[in-house]
Amino acid sequence: MYFPSWLSQLCRGLSRPIGRTTQPTWGSFSRSLALSSQRRIPEFSSFIARTNTCGELRSSHLGQEVTLCGWIQYRRQNIFLVLRDFHGLVQVVIPQDESAASVKKILCEAPLESVVQVSGTVISRPPGQENPKMPTGEIEIKVKTAELLNSCKRLPFEIKDFVKKTEALRLQYRYLDLRSFQMQYNLRLRSQVVMKMREYLCNLHGFVDIETPTLFKRTPGGAKEFLVPSREPGKFYSLPQSPQQFKQLLMVGGLDRYFQVARCYRDEGSRPDRQPEFTQIDIEMSFVDQTGIRSLIEGLLQYSWPSDKNPLVVPFPSMTFAEALATYGTDKPDTRFGMKIVDISNAFRNTEVRFLQDALSKPQGTVKAMCVREGAEVLPVFLKAKENWNSPVAKFILEKQRLELIRLMEIQEDDVVLLTAGEHKKACSLLGKLRLACADLLEMKGMVLRDPAQFSFLWVVDFPLFLPKEENPMELESAHHPFTAPHPGDIHLLYTEPEKVRSQHYDLVLNGTEIGGGSIRIHDAELQHYILATLLKEDVKLLSHLLQALDYGAPPHGGIALGLDRLMCLVTGAPSIRDVIAFPKSFRGHDLMSNAPDSVPPQELKPYHIQVSWPADSEAERAH
Amino acid sequence: MYFPSWLSQLCRGLSRPIGRTTQPTWGSFSRSLALSSQRRIPEFSSFIARTNTCGELRSSHLGQEVTLCGWIQYRRQNIFLVLRDFHGLVQVVIPQDESAASVKKILCEAPLESVVQVSGTVISRPPGQENPKMPTGEIEIKVKTAELLNSCKRLPFEIKDFVKKTEALRLQYRYLDLRSFQMQYNLRLRSQVVMKMREYLCNLHGFVDIETPTLFKRTPGGAKEFLVPSREPGKFYSLPQSPQQFKQLLMVGGLDRYFQVARCYRDEGSRPDRQPEFTQIDIEMSFVDQTGIRSLIEGLLQYSWPSDKNPLVVPFPSMTFAEALATYGTDKPDTRFGMKIVDISNAFRNTEVRFLQDALSKPQGTVKAMCVREGAEVLPVFLKAKENWNSPVAKFILEKQRLELIRLMEIQEDDVVLLTAGEHKKACSLLGKLRLACADLLEMKGMVLRDPAQFSFLWVVDFPLFLPKEENPMELESAHHPFTAPHPGDIHLLYTEPEKVRSQHYDLVLNGTEIGGGSIRIHDAELQHYILATLLKEDVKLLSHLLQALDYGAPPHGGIALGLDRLMCLVTGAPSIRDVIAFPKSFRGHDLMSNAPDSVPPQELKPYHIQVSWPADSEAERAH
Repeated sequence: MYFPSWLSQLCRGLSRPIGRTTQPTWGSFSRSLALSSQRRIPEFSSFIARTNTCGELRSSHLGQEVTLCGWIQYRRQNIFLVLRDFHGLVQVVIPQDESAASVKKILCEAPLESVVQVSGTVISRPPGQENPKMPTGEIEIKVKTAELLNSCKRLPFEIKDFVKKTEALRLQYRYLDLRSFQMQYNLRLRSQVVMKMREYLCNLHGFVDIETPTLFKRTPGGAKEFLVPSREPGKFYSLPQSPQQFKQLLMVGGLDRYFQVARCYRDEGSRPDRQPEFTQIDIEMSFVDQTGIRSLIEGLLQYSWPSDKNPLVVPFPSMTFAEALATYGTDKPDTRFGMKIVDISNAFRNTEVRFLQDALSKPQGTVKAMCVREGAEVLPVFLKAKENWNSPVAKFILEKQRLELIRLMEIQEDDVVLLTAGEHKKACSLLGKLRLACADLLEMKGMVLRDPAQFSFLWVVDFPLFLPKEENPMELESAHHPFTAPHPGDIHLLYTEPEKVRSQHYDLVLNGTEIGGGSIRIHDAELQHYILATLLKEDVKLLSHLLQALDYGAPPHGGIALGLDRLMCLVTGAPSIRDVIAFPKSFRGHDLMSNAPDSVPPQELKPYHIQVSWPADSEAERAH
Repeated sequence: MYFPSWLSQLCRGLSRPIGRTTQPTWGSFSRSLALSSQRRIPEFSSFIARTNTCGELRSSHLGQEVTLCGWIQYRRQNIFLVLRDFHGLVQVVIPQDESAASVKKILCEAPLESVVQVSGTVISRPPGQENPKMPTGEIEIKVKTAELLNSCKRLPFEIKDFVKKTEALRLQYRYLDLRSFQMQYNLRLRSQVVMKMREYLCNLHGFVDIETPTLFKRTPGGAKEFLVPSREPGKFYSLPQSPQQFKQLLMVGGLDRYFQVARCYRDEGSRPDRQPEFTQIDIEMSFVDQTGIRSLIEGLLQYSWPSDKNPLVVPFPSMTFAEALATYGTDKPDTRFGMKIVDISNAFRNTEVRFLQDALSKPQGTVKAMCVREGAEVLPVFLKAKENWNSPVAKFILEKQRLELIRLMEIQEDDVVLLTAGEHKKACSLLGKLRLACADLLEMKGMVLRDPAQFSFLWVVDFPLFLPKEENPMELESAHHPFTAPHPGDIHLLYTEPEKVRSQHYDLVLNGTEIGGGSIRIHDAELQHYILATLLKEDVKLLSHLLQALDYGAPPHGGIALGLDRLMCLVTGAPSIRDVIAFPKSFRGHDLMSNAPDSVPPQELKPYHIQVSWPADSEAERAH
């Protein structure tokens, strides 16, 4: 068979045991096409040469004259041929009698993966020859006419289950890779989910789908924006990272419920699992608060959730940024499993262990620990929960502290405790990373911590509005973007201790991945100006149109953007976002199929008044 | 009032009398929101602060406690205030009693266009004070509480009906312009039409919505493609003019019914009524012929046609390119009116008029004429149909010829006949242009030839596959694009007289504007290679991936793209495509609101290995 290899490759790609997730197959795909959204099946064969799809034929079609178009999947002894289209497989009986010699010739001589059109009758398979594993396994096609629509040349690789393909090869021949069951499933499911989202937003809740430009002006600090030279010397458009400014301006313009499936651009050079262009479900509403946006999104995801997955339960749980950091060591906790971080500072107030003493004596100094259930089997041991506390530190820990630790952490036999001391945020982040590393290790040993069929959504709220700049911690930068409104309870701090101000930003996290984020925006021009100019020291000239717009009757507003590629990656269980995108770039930003980006003759640069600045060494190379 | 000026401006913009078209108003807009697509009205107030929209309140809401959010449209004597949201206008009674002094203060002091939230009760207007012209004219709001959500500063222009605004000013303050009824109507209608198209394609006919990349490789002859420098020295992405290659590759990949509302890019410098980025409804199908595509599109437009327009009648009429040229002098005839071109060569075979003689003696020489009904009133007279044939040529025309002409052209008193002689195509094109110019003139005099409420669709088919290159007529170029399949009846001519080959291209024309085009594509690698390399002399290396794909079991396929901006422009009767786009560029490609394109500091060009080549004079300017 054709697809299981791809499926098992997919599973290996996940590098963890698959739990109760049911991976789809051609059969379940046909069903899911029919079941999804509980409405009538679309007409897949209207307007074209075929009367039916290969995958839809059943006993109920017996006796029908059908015309099918598809690819030759395989052939058995010149007697049977299996024809494939996106919908599934069907068995075709090659006629053996003299009068049908030309049909036989066509069907026996066409190479595999050739495209043929056959017409014939749906008949029962002889008793005992039914194939219960195949949705069309009760029937076969008795062919009357056949036409070779296009012959397939020798393929660059055998499209067979046991032939492994590197991702580079798959991307180079993407048009062949797209024929795989998994890519068909991923792209069709994506289309269905987006369609349901549109129905929810447009038809049920009166949102307006508005297209915003992608040739725009660079935004302050937009260092990751692609540039597009214009025909005016020295003038460039920018490809924006999101329609942020436009959607806020739409609110000022009274288009009070906007959405767009928006193409966005981010030039991050080489980063795995990022794409230079990506898609977000972009939403903005007027007269809304955080609760409103959250309810909207919960309803949206529930409504558009694939029917072959367990239905979503709403509302999603919510957690403050502070709590997420303290408990999971990250702002995007994977809440499918526990292994929470515990603050054990108090148990060690009087410790004699020097490094703990040191840590606790400093401002914000803490001791944190995390208990890895049954970790003894797999982990390089630090504090092993046996009575002898197998660890170099153990002997310095007093019995009282030991008991307190066991009580706080609920330590049991064969658990492993990881302990760290230091500044709160750093200590938490470290344990947060170890938490995921431990989960990897445990899952390699066969434990299931993160069931890919479980979808744990989580809202993370109350982020800080500003962060100290990495290169100069005395200066502030926006934790998210400069249009985020401050938390109403913290506005007074803006003028005294801005670093303490919480924001009205919210993130949506799914299984430890951030799949969306948004905020209530600033609608007061004066406040926006103060934050941009005084606190962030940005050049407000670049944003004068937005500041001006806020002065002319801007309504209170807020919004969110969901990362569609990441969401679909998680929903389909794909190993990479490249598996839910029809024509992705490689992790170096190349299109391996067409070889983009590519050289351009100098005369084509002229109208744009640019020339290439060749790096010195590359210049030397070119001279050769 | 607020909008009629904008409406009348719109009508003037069309520069012809409006026939029976019913221009929408706030009232009809509320109705159209409700009526469109015969389904339940979306919940416009879910998840947010208001309970209702301003525009939806009726007598059926009497006694209800409501909360409304909107903009202050105007105020009358501090007694009434009219509140506006996208849905319409509602009258709010400003409380006059002492106990509500704070509410009164808010509502009386807020400048017009400020945003307020009011809560109160829906009450009847006192008898005699109903306003039948206003959909909410039977009721008003008795306010209990009011909140000023945002005050409006002094506006750059008065948003009043009698204040004319240039388009440049409208674009500079687009966020204010979007509050106009007309822009709200245009953008909301566009969203609804696209949503219906998606329902038709996705839900009814099993199409898959697939996003294709916009960072791609330059295509052969892609001189109008924007470039995007990458971080690799000398390597550029291109922003493609359409997803043409991708959609064909999707067919090879077995995604056999593709559509996308696709953003496309074309750098044409300054051209009125073109946008550097535009949107097309992009469609491709496998196993389809011309008839299939045409039926699909007819069904699509019929299904998605706005409910406030007359329903479309399908199938649309069809005409060959040759017939369109001969009869209307163009490949996009406006078939709302006659004034057809007639070949009168035979009537003048024996003429003594020298220039007619000359023309007829040459190969493809013809004499053509067009009769402008009642043209005598408005046209600079050439051949006037009075008995004395008021024209310098008249005396050379024999009585027999005159009678034959009257018979052929059905000439009546007060008609004007325009006559030209020369090569067939040139003669037809000239008369085609005169035909439209005459229509303009007649309409300026009050005749209605082109009713904007009439939608005359027309398929134009059987285009030539190749045209002689303008700069070198001995060489051929594709009439449309090099992937267009030749007409099956003409394939033998490809190798002998390629200039005579008709194509399987089809255009969809609406009221004299091309709103779509497509073709059956070449699915045979050898044929595609022959056309690219031998006939068109293109560099096939740039397309090697596509040629290769055709070899690996490419199904027969075809498709079409509809220009959404142009279609919506015609549907809404807008004077320019800029009126159906939220944030359009000026005709010079500028965003007048944000001032894009803009200068970029040299250090931001560095990562892309480019530098600006300043033109000599501009260099001089910069030195000052």
